[in-house]
Amino acid sequence: MARTLYQHARKLPIISPHGHSQAAWFAKNVPFPDPASLFVQPDHYIFRMLYSQGVSLGDLEIGRTVLENPRKVWRIFASHYYLFRGTPTRMWLDFAFQELFGLKRRLSEESADLYFDMIAEKLRAPEFLPRALFKRFNLEVLATTDSPLDSLADHKAIRESNWKAKILPTFRPDPVVDPEFAGFAENLAKLGEKTGEDTSTWAGYLNALKATRVRFRELGCTATDHGHPTARTANLSPAQAAALFRRVIAGNADAQQQELFRAQMLTEMARMSLEDGLVMQIHPGSVRNHNRKLYERYGRDVGADIPMQTNYVDALRPLLDEFGNERDLTIILFTLDESAYSRELAPLAGHYPCLRLGPPWWFHDSPEGMMRFREHVTETAGFYNTVGFNDDTRAFLSIPARHDMARRMDCAFLAKLVAEHRLEEEEALEVAEDLAYRLVKKAYRL
Amino acid sequence: MARTLYQHARKLPIISPHGHSQAAWFAKNVPFPDPASLFVQPDHYIFRMLYSQGVSLGDLEIGRTVLENPRKVWRIFASHYYLFRGTPTRMWLDFAFQELFGLKRRLSEESADLYFDMIAEKLRAPEFLPRALFKRFNLEVLATTDSPLDSLADHKAIRESNWKAKILPTFRPDPVVDPEFAGFAENLAKLGEKTGEDTSTWAGYLNALKATRVRFRELGCTATDHGHPTARTANLSPAQAAALFRRVIAGNADAQQQELFRAQMLTEMARMSLEDGLVMQIHPGSVRNHNRKLYERYGRDVGADIPMQTNYVDALRPLLDEFGNERDLTIILFTLDESAYSRELAPLAGHYPCLRLGPPWWFHDSPEGMMRFREHVTETAGFYNTVGFNDDTRAFLSIPARHDMARRMDCAFLAKLVAEHRLEEEEALEVAEDLAYRLVKKAYRL
Amino acid sequence: MARTLYQHARKLPIISPHGHSQAAWFAKNVPFPDPASLFVQPDHYIFRMLYSQGVSLGDLEIGRTVLENPRKVWRIFASHYYLFRGTPTRMWLDFAFQELFGLKRRLSEESADLYFDMIAEKLRAPEFLPRALFKRFNLEVLATTDSPLDSLADHKAIRESNWKAKILPTFRPDPVVDPEFAGFAENLAKLGEKTGEDTSTWAGYLNALKATRVRFRELGCTATDHGHPTARTANLSPAQAAALFRRVIAGNADAQQQELFRAQMLTEMARMSLEDGLVMQIHPGSVRNHNRKLYERYGRDVGADIPMQTNYVDALRPLLDEFGNERDLTIILFTLDESAYSRELAPLAGHYPCLRLGPPWWFHDSPEGMMRFREHVTETAGFYNTVGFNDDTRAFLSIPARHDMARRMDCAFLAKLVAEHRLEEEEALEVAEDLAYRLVKKAYRL
Repeated sequence: MARTLYQHARKLPIISPHGHSQAAWFAKNVPFPDPASLFVQPDHYIFRMLYSQGVSLGDLEIGRTVLENPRKVWRIFASHYYLFRGTPTRMWLDFAFQELFGLKRRLSEESADLYFDMIAEKLRAPEFLPRALFKRFNLEVLATTDSPLDSLADHKAIRESNWKAKILPTFRPDPVVDPEFAGFAENLAKLGEKTGEDTSTWAGYLNALKATRVRFRELGCTATDHGHPTARTANLSPAQAAALFRRVIAGNADAQQQELFRAQMLTEMARMSLEDGLVMQIHPGSVRNHNRKLYERYGRDVGADIPMQTNYVDALRPLLDEFGNERDLTIILFTLDESAYSRELAPLAGHYPCLRLGPPWWFHDSPEGMMRFREHVTETAGFYNTVGFNDDTRAFLSIPARHDMARRMDCAFLAKLVAEHRLEEEEALEVAEDLAYRLVKKAYRL
Repeated sequence: MARTLYQHARKLPIISPHGHSQAAWFAKNVPFPDPASLFVQPDHYIFRMLYSQGVSLGDLEIGRTVLENPRKVWRIFASHYYLFRGTPTRMWLDFAFQELFGLKRRLSEESADLYFDMIAEKLRAPEFLPRALFKRFNLEVLATTDSPLDSLADHKAIRESNWKAKILPTFRPDPVVDPEFAGFAENLAKLGEKTGEDTSTWAGYLNALKATRVRFRELGCTATDHGHPTARTANLSPAQAAALFRRVIAGNADAQQQELFRAQMLTEMARMSLEDGLVMQIHPGSVRNHNRKLYERYGRDVGADIPMQTNYVDALRPLLDEFGNERDLTIILFTLDESAYSRELAPLAGHYPCLRLGPPWWFHDSPEGMMRFREHVTETAGFYNTVGFNDDTRAFLSIPARHDMARRMDCAFLAKLVAEHRLEEEEALEVAEDLAYRLVKKAYRL
Repeated sequence: MARTLYQHARKLPIISPHGHSQAAWFAKNVPFPDPASLFVQPDHYIFRMLYSQGVSLGDLEIGRTVLENPRKVWRIFASHYYLFRGTPTRMWLDFAFQELFGLKRRLSEESADLYFDMIAEKLRAPEFLPRALFKRFNLEVLATTDSPLDSLADHKAIRESNWKAKILPTFRPDPVVDPEFAGFAENLAKLGEKTGEDTSTWAGYLNALKATRVRFRELGCTATDHGHPTARTANLSPAQAAALFRRVIAGNADAQQQELFRAQMLTEMARMSLEDGLVMQIHPGSVRNHNRKLYERYGRDVGADIPMQTNYVDALRPLLDEFGNERDLTIILFTLDESAYSRELAPLAGHYPCLRLGPPWWFHDSPEGMMRFREHVTETAGFYNTVGFNDDTRAFLSIPARHDMARRMDCAFLAKLVAEHRLEEEEALEVAEDLAYRLVKKAYRL
């Protein structure tokens, strides 16, 4: 039964509504440089595991724009490949190695050079150029994640080329709404310059954000994304909000006030979304840059973000008090705290018209994590308060593998329901297609 | 093996020791009015899901005593029936449709009228009167949930009729022990009138509660139920408790003091239970009326209660310090926070003589939720510190389906133990019957 | 597939790197006294379950050094044996009864005397002496858990005997680093006497600890163990730490300062471990002696320790800021809060070079608990950031059963990966042996 369902789901186009692919790949359409730059360097799943077992980030050339010795990096990776046994990373990599490069012998110290040479050679071929792969992957939509300060020049270039692919920006305002974000003050100044608004006033700041959302929407953007430490929201009066903003830009806000400002900004973003139709994504619960020494040396995104307990039921209340009953607003919630699935998230999404549940995120997009998601949320939120799959990846070549895994696990879950006479076969087939294709399209308004 | 066990368990009478059936149904024994009033209106599982997908509560006629257009409500429900795929609600409904009404074609927009007409017709037949269904369901005991202010006239009427069914009240004192309960002050005044005690004094208040418990016990009540926001208990000195009570009834207690009062009252209730033998049920961890606007318009119990994290290990300590080692006291604990199963609840119930674990509750009484319960608590608390199943439902027709699901899941769990040579077949059979019938009878002293 | 893997894993020697066996058993090598002293008295899993169902600890003769009526205790146990259905305790006991004593009929009230007599007789035979059982169990290493105040005379006696078994002490400094430990002040004084250091000064206290670690290491100790209430760590300056120490030994520290002192001591222990190579084990999250009345009457370890929520991500940060990137330090983390597996522990261990995850601990070392552990941590931490199995038991005869269960469950998990084409058979075989034997040896530096 699982196989029957999967035969239908696997053929559907891939919609990737949230991820960290670079528009530049498709704007420029030049070959990916080498196997290590393609597979190892962008993927913190890989180097966090290597680092945990004593491999130094220096030896992996993390932080270098161009690799000095990609073969050496590749060999280190290959000789530690056994570390990934049982992890989803292993499955994504094997999928890409086999499906894309025809490499069936297992990667190891022995096969490292064979892999490197074979992949390097293929990457130079026309059918491995980014646009060719986009087509080969059966991608219908691919969304990137972008700062409000980004010119979106690559997105424009794609639009202006004669290549008809749907690559859309996503509005991620963290650099200009999170007072703790590196360079927050300069970011606000730049935002003012870019929009011609006076971002030193609350009204001008909000206008600048609205204007930037318009600019994103003109390039096809349908969603925003918010990576706050917590899910906390606030609903201050305009006067209180303005006063808090003044404090924040004066650099006088303490940690609590900075958190309150982020909380208020989620509510402001919801207000704007209700007006302009952008779907909100809230991704809370990651302690960023947990490893102080690595952060000082290598900066963000080096595999040292650690999940923490997340409360949604109290945190979202101010926003939901204001906008929770709006049917024209869509807020997609993610979690890194799986204990919230059945306790808070499914009950919230199974009640509030504006809420939907994003798929298992980050550390949890494994076969077991995907099964836990369905087993914990379906009972209360059903299938139709969920929104299909997100790959959320920086590793472009892993996209087909990730969606494939999600489809397999959803089909396995549905097959179990059919086997237990909890769902009819014909319904399961419809749901399998909904989960793989239709729900994501609807939720993200694509 | 699961089937063999289930063949034994399914035939046993149903004991429903905790739920929200209405004694009036059986006292009056008039036909249920129509399919929508029977299935949709009382079941917040149903309308919370519809509401989450944009159906208005107004269109569902929620809040009306008598439905204006039950067929229209039924059609809305039927056309959204696909939303319940994969949920236990779907299984309960299908069970009732098939077993009671012989409806085998799936409910949908197309079959809505067929269903409505067929069910409406059958509901007028004598074999669908409440008392007939009670018998057909093989119910041995059915407990309702009642306010201390309730006259229990319907319970009396049943007793005084020549119908010999065991329908028992449950003492749920929230309206008179929770200072945040709507109408608390008036409730206390009424309690005073009803009992002839001066409920403006601590001693009179406690006497009034004791007298009411006597009144409930005289009608067969064997249990109390406590739906506090948290599991917090306290053990103040009599003088401290009296002072807190004065503050509470003067309306001067802040949120913390109100919480402390509820906490103290759990300990007072335990003290009374040790004297009069009523079994305590503690149901904490629900944030009631999370949706402010709906609460203002429609009041309580409209599907907007959301679970939250619950701590038992610290919260119960004051009560357990006082009464935890009493073998003649039974306290049944429930949770909406499944992470507490293996961490706190099973270890507590596997040690303290007075503690037992209630079955998976509310959002968690699904096949997966039931399996998680057994998998997380059996290792530490065994089977004999659990108390069988509670349906906890307002939807009378779902009672057989819910107990059937619980029996199937318990048999599936036991069959797995037998298959893995962790339990002998003959033992599994005994446990299956214990879980379906004997444990609940013993725990609730029926 | 599971069976094939298990056939390999089951034959490997047992390494028991953490437990509560007594060195005295092997130093003296006299027969175990009787079945009740051997099975019931040391095992709080057993008497906590009996107590939860109304058996008094007095009737079980808990707290007596020598049992007055072991047969009576045994009969009580036997007649309540059905309570253990579905628990791992049942499996460990049945394993020992069958494999060691050839008892195949189930233990019950009826077979109680047969069991007692048969076991009592065998215990007097030479092949049931502690040293003979050690060999029969195929134990390669057995670590005990020892106070810094222990003379380790039994360990010395074993070393000095001509019996060549590897029985090693573990340094558990709780009695001298936890200000709330019973007799803390006297313990410090004794520590000073034993080491010739002035333990009333911060420097002397640290020196005394270092000297004791040397003494332990000389007897083969490779690890320390820390049973703090929380995982909190601190990294005070030497002056701050010295000031806090003065406050603590003066008896002026409040609860927060006592917690801060324990937190600081974890960091001090890590510093010493980096120097002397002892592996650290941190076992947080147990509320000790939750039952006040039992504690006052019977003292510690009577089955009344209850797990609580545990935060690792913030708590460990001060220690990790200082030592997290050290590849020569090994810190093994345990939890009683399973919600931390996928949320905090696997992400931390999958990043920091010094961190490893201990196996499912205490209430969670059941078949389901073991499967949950692998399912929740493997996706992010892989297999190679885990450290094999610990039995952590006071019940010597349960050691083979516990390791056998762990091996079976790991093989079942691996077989599932092979069946789902996520791992090749040959790899699974290697991992099965790693999990059963090689990882523990490496992690504990044996």
